[in-house]
Formats: sequence, structure tokens, C-alpha cells
Amino acid sequence: MPLSPGASVTAFAPATTSNLGPGFDVLGLALDGPGDTVTATLSPTPGVRIVSIEGDGGALPLDPQQNTAAVAAAATLALAGVALGVELELSKGLPIGSGLGSSAASAAAAAFATNLLIGGPLRKRELIEPCLDAEAVVAGRHADNVAPALLGGLILVRRTDPLDLIRLPVPPGLWVGLVTPAFELQTRVARAALPEAIELAAMVRQSADLAALVSACHTGDLALLSRCVVDEVVAPRRAALIPGCGEVIAAAERAGALGSTVSGAGPTVLALCRSRSNAIEVTAAMAAAFEASGLSSTSFVSTADCPGARRR
Amino acid sequence: MPLSPGASVTAFAPATTSNLGPGFDVLGLALDGPGDTVTATLSPTPGVRIVSIEGDGGALPLDPQQNTAAVAAAATLALAGVALGVELELSKGLPIGSGLGSSAASAAAAAFATNLLIGGPLRKRELIEPCLDAEAVVAGRHADNVAPALLGGLILVRRTDPLDLIRLPVPPGLWVGLVTPAFELQTRVARAALPEAIELAAMVRQSADLAALVSACHTGDLALLSRCVVDEVVAPRRAALIPGCGEVIAAAERAGALGSTVSGAGPTVLALCRSRSNAIEVTAAMAAAFEASGLSSTSFVSTADCPGARRR
Repeated sequence: MPLSPGASVTAFAPATTSNLGPGFDVLGLALDGPGDTVTATLSPTPGVRIVSIEGDGGALPLDPQQNTAAVAAAATLALAGVALGVELELSKGLPIGSGLGSSAASAAAAAFATNLLIGGPLRKRELIEPCLDAEAVVAGRHADNVAPALLGGLILVRRTDPLDLIRLPVPPGLWVGLVTPAFELQTRVARAALPEAIELAAMVRQSADLAALVSACHTGDLALLSRCVVDEVVAPRRAALIPGCGEVIAAAERAGALGSTVSGAGPTVLALCRSRSNAIEVTAAMAAAFEASGLSSTSFVSTADCPGARRR
Repeated sequence: MPLSPGASVTAFAPATTSNLGPGFDVLGLALDGPGDTVTATLSPTPGVRIVSIEGDGGALPLDPQQNTAAVAAAATLALAGVALGVELELSKGLPIGSGLGSSAASAAAAAFATNLLIGGPLRKRELIEPCLDAEAVVAGRHADNVAPALLGGLILVRRTDPLDLIRLPVPPGLWVGLVTPAFELQTRVARAALPEAIELAAMVRQSADLAALVSACHTGDLALLSRCVVDEVVAPRRAALIPGCGEVIAAAERAGALGSTVSGAGPTVLALCRSRSNAIEVTAAMAAAFEASGLSSTSFVSTADCPGARRR
């Protein structure tokens, strides 16, 4: 592929939801719907620059040291050993600080576009490290959003250093409903609410739930999955930061969801459902519960078996 | 089945190993080799009595309130709603306080024999509750030994109250080597060494390892399994109570084990291996390492796919 100045590649990376109840910092799932789009264009000037951002309401930094798309693009170039100039145009389809992996989607789309732009020297899995560098700038070196944003599907992050990822099967027929209230919860604030220490007995229950959830994914046992979408360690502290969250989760479960919990660091609330039609019903019930707490919201439903970053 | 005085049933329940690294209080595996045998005999005098114990060196109580076999038998009668007298003869094939589920094996054999003696009104799974009552007398209400001792195989204990058990597939070809040093470690002492609280980051790593281990069992990925037989929360504190334990684990890994860790509360050390022949080699290396620390030991190897309690 000729690396001519002005050549460009556009890539999309999807929203992702992390934790899924007991899998704090460990489980991430790619979603079908909104996402971020990045166009990378070769430039004769070395280095990575953000030339435009739209859809962020002016919130994101243009500084390439601070913007996850630029950090991921620069780290991708460095990992490939390529000293070229790249200009990025970032189109945000994801709300910032929403619990939908907004920073990860920008990083994944930028890394994916940049890699293609320079002829694709890196495999998709190798783009995770550059995206981790990007996540480290905003939320810590966590792979639970960047891994599914790149690779798609349901990913178990065993370790980030060295990286050890396991792709889990997605139970057939599983759908996800997601409702994002008009309420920004910074990932840093949500992280600050985390407990420093956990009682041993709570760790046992939490790890048993995660283990059982993984088993349910392998066997497609939705009844078991339903019992495992719980989190007594992290989600309660985050739910307390989100107005009406408890009522929203209760509404999802009353409407027939398999389980409902905070998506990532919130404030989006997630519900796992047995069908598309149930996901639509559940999502409407959740939105109504947010509305009752005075919050408007946006919603979407998604299958649970979705692709990751791709060319647009 | 006629319930005539003097009728008797003999049952056997196997050794079990719990935790398997990251699965503290959650994972248990039935073993093939030593175990406990209980003969239950109908008596005209109501209540459960222990009439003989052999193989315990006089260590176990005859008091039916304190002996796990008697507690399990009495709870089995109560659960079945049967007010009969039962006399138990207990033959210990398992060393006490060894980390091989000695109390669970006695309870499981007694519950199984008693249920058969009264005509088998309860399913095998229903015998777990009576055995939990028995475990509560000696080590707390934990199902990670009694569940595999009854049901066989590899069991994930999601909850004990209410009981929620998941049978996990055992990777084909997996073998286990177990070495028990001549050193008694009371379960109560081993439990007292447990940390009360865990750092959040340690919980994340531990639960990720357990989740990945469960996934490896479903896919038969022994390389992944090998990375997951680790425990930074519980095993290090128990290993510190067992002379030479660190060297024994290192010897197992040098000899080619997939992984090695403390079995249950110890002092038995377990190694997961790729074959019977490797399990034999690994076990010899572990025994030599205990010997170098001045401890004689007994060993056995077992497949990982073993039956639970059965009639003898």
C-alpha cells in the first residue's frame, strides 16, 4: 500500500459495556449501535494531531497527549516502528463519561484506522497495548473496554500486564438494553467511589458469581446467567452516585430482564435480556424509571454478539 | 425396601481437593484413591450412634453431636422425616486435618449410607444440606468438599444458602498428584490464618484467575488452566504454616506440573498434571522436597474425573 500524503482511512469502534455485574475490570462486551468514528490521514509533518472533533460538545481536548484517540494513534505508530505524521478527525457517537466505553471507542477507532493507514503491520490484538496507553491517560490501564471495542464479542481480561485475554462464547439469543441518563458521571469520580478493601467473604461470593457467569456463557444457561448478574462490591457504590439507579434496575427486572446493573462506571444502566422484544420492553421501563427520577435518557438495544473495530 | 432392624448399608466417599488455586471456598474436585467408608445399620433405638471408628488413631469423637458422620446421618434422617435409629461404623481412609476433605468424606459416606438404608427417599443432591450441617460442626458451612464428595467431578459452589452448585467439565487427560506430609494442620488453624480483607486489585486478579480457570475447564485449554492455578490471597498464608511448602510447589512446577498449590486448608499439596505418568513424576518430586524439609509424606495420583459417594 502506497503511503502517500493525503491518503486516509476511516474506522469505527463500537460502544462497549464492562463488568456485567461481578466482572469488575475483567469482563467487557462489544455492543451494536453507537460508536466513535476516526478518520486518519497521512501528513508530511511527523507526529499525531487532532484536526477536528465533532459530537463532543467541545468537551474533549485537542492536545494529542490528552486525547485518547491521539495517544492510541501515536502508540500504534511507535509499536509499528513507523515515524510518520497522522492527522485525526474524530467523530464522537458516544457520550463522554457514560459507562459505554467512550474513551476506549475513540482509542480503538484511532488505533485501527492508523494501523490500516500505514499498511496494517499490526494484528488487531496488538492494537490493545496502544489503546491501553490511551486509557491510562483518562481512566487507568484497563482493557475491559478497549479489548471488546477492538476484538468484538465478550472478552475476559485475565491480566493486562502481560496482556492475557480470553474470548468467551456469547449465549445464543442474548440481548442487551442500555439506558443512559442525561447525567455525566466522570470515570475518575466513579473510580474514587470504589472500596479499597473487600471482606474475604464478599470476595468469595463475587468471584463465585463471576465464575458461574463464565460457565453460563459456555453452556448458554440463561437461568444461571440471570442469577449471576449481581455485584455487591462495586455497583452499589456507583449506583449511589446515579439518581434513581436502584429504581431503574428494579424496573428492568420487573419487566423481565435476566439481570440489570450499572454499565462500566455508569451512569448508563444495562439489562441482559432473553430477546430483542424483551430488551425493547425492558429499556422502555428503565427509561420511564429514570424519567420518574427527573432524568431524561437515551436508549438502545443490542445483540450480545457484535463485531469490534472495523473500516468505515 | 423392608426397614428391618439389623439391615445395613455400606458406602464410600472419596477424598476431595478444594480451591484449586483461585477458587477459595468455591471449587472442589473429587479424587480417586483414599476415602472414608461408613456402614449404617438400623437399630430399634431411635437416634444416631457411632459404634466404632477405625483408622483415626483415636482422634475422632464418638459423640454424635461432634462427629461429622453422625451429624450428617442424623440430618439425613431429619430431612427425610424418618424417626429411626441408626448405628454407624466409620472406617477412616483419610488422614484428619490433611486438606483432603476428611470430614466431608465421613459426612458424605454417612449421609449416602443412611439414605440408602431408609430406602433412598432423598436424591444425592439433597444430601448436601445434611453434609453442610456436619461440616459446620468442624470447619464452617462450606460445600466445596461435601459437594464433590457426594456428586463426584468438579463442582463450582456459587452459594451455600440457598445452595447453588454448578458442575464444571473436567479437561480430558487431566491428572492430579497429591502429597500429604506427616504434619497435621487443623482446618480451624488454617482458617484463622485467612486475611479478613482483600485489596480491590487483588480481588480483581483472583476473580479473573478463577473465571479464566472455569473457561479453561469448558474449553480443555490446559495452557490457560496452567496460568490460572495461582492464589495470592489464601494459599500464601497457608503455605507459610506448612514446612517446605514453597519448595514443594516449586519442585512440582520444575517436574512439569501445570500448576501446584495447597489442597484445601493444607497441608496436602496438589499438582495438576497433563498425564498419569507426569503426575507420578511430579508427586515423587514433591515428596522429595518435603523429605528435604524433614517431613515424610504419603502420596497418590488421581484422574480429575472421578465419581462421588457410592455403595460398597
